[in-house]
Amino acid sequence: MAVRLIALYNQPDDPAAFDAHYRDVHGPMVRRYPGLRDMRLTRTDGLGGRPPAFYLIAEMVFDSRDDLVAAMASEAGVESGRDLRNFAASGVTLLVADDDAVGPGA
Amino acid sequence: MAVRLIALYNQPDDPAAFDAHYRDVHGPMVRRYPGLRDMRLTRTDGLGGRPPAFYLIAEMVFDSRDDLVAAMASEAGVESGRDLRNFAASGVTLLVADDDAVGPGA
Repeated sequence: MAVRLIALYNQPDDPAAFDAHYRDVHGPMVRRYPGLRDMRLTRTDGLGGRPPAFYLIAEMVFDSRDDLVAAMASEAGVESGRDLRNFAASGVTLLVADDDAVGPGA
Repeated sequence: MAVRLIALYNQPDDPAAFDAHYRDVHGPMVRRYPGLRDMRLTRTDGLGGRPPAFYLIAEMVFDSRDDLVAAMASEAGVESGRDLRNFAASGVTLLVADDDAVGPGA
């Protein structure tokens, strides 16, 4: 069963520097994860004009939980984990989600 | 452009009661949102055996931001907002995300 690793990035102090680092450094590391099936980056807004609780959502899809664990343990996974300190000092929340979406009837 | 309303629910004190209320009461309200195109519920886990920061992710897709705003202002939207106090006392974080996923090359 496919799984998603979801990274919720807090609002950075310097959004332009964050964006540039993600684009040029962190993103390329993530794309080297073995077994990465899909990657999705989403900018967020708050509701009703309030500032959003998170700045960026990054979702990374793998075929299985074992593949996700292997990716995290890989050279790219370790490197990207270390790289968080270089641009995500304001914080990041990581979630793992089984990709077993429950339909409207559930 | 499609938008997603993302609700990140904190860990409830009574997960079984939360699940039952979501399934039987809150979910049906959400499914009555005018303009709702898709709904997705995802259970989460933490990474490396740690407890997840959020218990449930609910994603609701609309064709446009105007449709999302109209759904929130609708009877079902107001009712579902009021209903949060009945099952989500431990907290919920709402985000709006433009559904403009950035590909791996961006």
